[in-house]
Amino acid sequence: MSRAIVLGVDVGGTNVKAALVAKDGRVVASVSYSTEAEAGPEAFAKTLHHRLENLLKEAGLHKADVASVGIGLPAFLDVPKGIIEQAVNLHWTDVPIVDLVTAELDLPVMIDNDANLAALGEVWKGAGKNAKSALCVTLGTGVGGGIVLDGRVYRGVTTMAGEIGHISIKPDGELCNCGHYGCLETLASATALVRDGVRAGLQSPRGHDEPLSAEDVFQLAESGDQAAQTVLSTMIHWLAVGLSTVANTLNPDTIVVSGGLVNAGDALLGPLRVEFSRAALHRVANGCRIVAAELGSSAGMLGAARLAWQFADSEA
Amino acid sequence: MSRAIVLGVDVGGTNVKAALVAKDGRVVASVSYSTEAEAGPEAFAKTLHHRLENLLKEAGLHKADVASVGIGLPAFLDVPKGIIEQAVNLHWTDVPIVDLVTAELDLPVMIDNDANLAALGEVWKGAGKNAKSALCVTLGTGVGGGIVLDGRVYRGVTTMAGEIGHISIKPDGELCNCGHYGCLETLASATALVRDGVRAGLQSPRGHDEPLSAEDVFQLAESGDQAAQTVLSTMIHWLAVGLSTVANTLNPDTIVVSGGLVNAGDALLGPLRVEFSRAALHRVANGCRIVAAELGSSAGMLGAARLAWQFADSEA
Repeated sequence: MSRAIVLGVDVGGTNVKAALVAKDGRVVASVSYSTEAEAGPEAFAKTLHHRLENLLKEAGLHKADVASVGIGLPAFLDVPKGIIEQAVNLHWTDVPIVDLVTAELDLPVMIDNDANLAALGEVWKGAGKNAKSALCVTLGTGVGGGIVLDGRVYRGVTTMAGEIGHISIKPDGELCNCGHYGCLETLASATALVRDGVRAGLQSPRGHDEPLSAEDVFQLAESGDQAAQTVLSTMIHWLAVGLSTVANTLNPDTIVVSGGLVNAGDALLGPLRVEFSRAALHRVANGCRIVAAELGSSAGMLGAARLAWQFADSEA
Repeated sequence: MSRAIVLGVDVGGTNVKAALVAKDGRVVASVSYSTEAEAGPEAFAKTLHHRLENLLKEAGLHKADVASVGIGLPAFLDVPKGIIEQAVNLHWTDVPIVDLVTAELDLPVMIDNDANLAALGEVWKGAGKNAKSALCVTLGTGVGGGIVLDGRVYRGVTTMAGEIGHISIKPDGELCNCGHYGCLETLASATALVRDGVRAGLQSPRGHDEPLSAEDVFQLAESGDQAAQTVLSTMIHWLAVGLSTVANTLNPDTIVVSGGLVNAGDALLGPLRVEFSRAALHRVANGCRIVAAELGSSAGMLGAARLAWQFADSEA
């Protein structure tokens, strides 16, 4: 008898989101709890086991119903070996996470990085539905991304594919954390928007003592502040240049934009689409739609569930 | 009984190269002849039929032995529809080439663009053998490229994937034919090398009346000419920046460099590897080898044969 459910797990620096997910994407039961990374990976595995048992009880299911487990991690991974090489925010290094969790749960386990699984989630059930070739880019503190081809994560050889935050598009630009200059992340993240806003003398409309936020810059621009409009359009210009560089290489049919900045909606996506169609080759721009992510913070968990289903099907 | 042979065809602006190729890559018979594009696509198909019959005679085979035909074209294509949208150098527009050749030869026909098939050829039988994810870049008059993932051409949605000549890496750079500024092609092609050499006052060592060539720049640099060394190292720097941008997105295990400039061998690839390892993310550079193409002008024909075999197997 085929098993009815998988466990999808999205591990963040602060919280873990876990859910039992059916093959059609239906979330049967879900939970969010504190990561407590400082307790170490063995404790993480034990807690996950405990949470899984609670979820199964809640759903009226048994462990024998679980086909497999997919886990998204904020880390550099060796996916074939099932190892976390480095998870900076968790302070974990060289952890055989697949072996650990498999031993604890006695279930097949598959891992990927969180950005890749958020991308897979959006292509499975969100804004990228039915995409043949999708680039998903997350605009937050930094710029992350993932590539999904024919419904599967494309990882590249060292799980770095789609990490487009560090493509260099302005050689005389700012120094990036990665040691290079003018990376996309230094030009088109929420961090960059706030930095340039402060430099332009913008002040939060919420009060002079409030630190300027990315939302503030959008709000000031919308209310007619010319300095804010310049800061915003400069950011969108560079984002379009970066996305066009990637799209000219990958020729995707869909770019899904996620992260906090997407809350701005068409104030971001409208001008971005215009600039992108200027910056990319015509045949590339014509074949590509740019859409806002739909799944919010559930994308990674759903992507992890999708990975688990793909893994279960490949083992079956 | 399974068919023993395919016909691989590489259509260039000047010449057509065609060969009967066995499943293991062995070339059983081959021919090169003038393209005569001005006679039109129907005449092209008729000539190909005639050449195929001669090749079969030469090899002691019959048309019943031919599994399928793969054709590489210097063109923008709609591969699923089998249409040449535009072949600038052939002056052909909107040609249903698959239908035309199928009707003439009475054999299954598959097409792709020439750069993609040169990439496929190098991964099948050349410098990219066994690559899981390869980017092949051709440095000539312009900069072209192709991507091969898991042994198959990755085309993207409008067959533009891997056309990395038009990624913008120097926003304040030269105007490109495509209408944008600072494309890789304006910085790292043979054309760019000669242009910058002329600007630096370099003169061909073959005589003052000889126009400066890319080979001249390499030769002058090797003989200690400092201006030539600067021109060359600048070109290699930008090539490394461009390749690192693509590699940070695609995370390939192999980059195959082809085209006339590769004749310079380690004078190009040595410093390119050093600059690339500086410009790309460490995990990306560490996972990626840069190698010179091995198949020369046969790459496209062999790639066309490989495509034909893949097509025949998928139809079987």
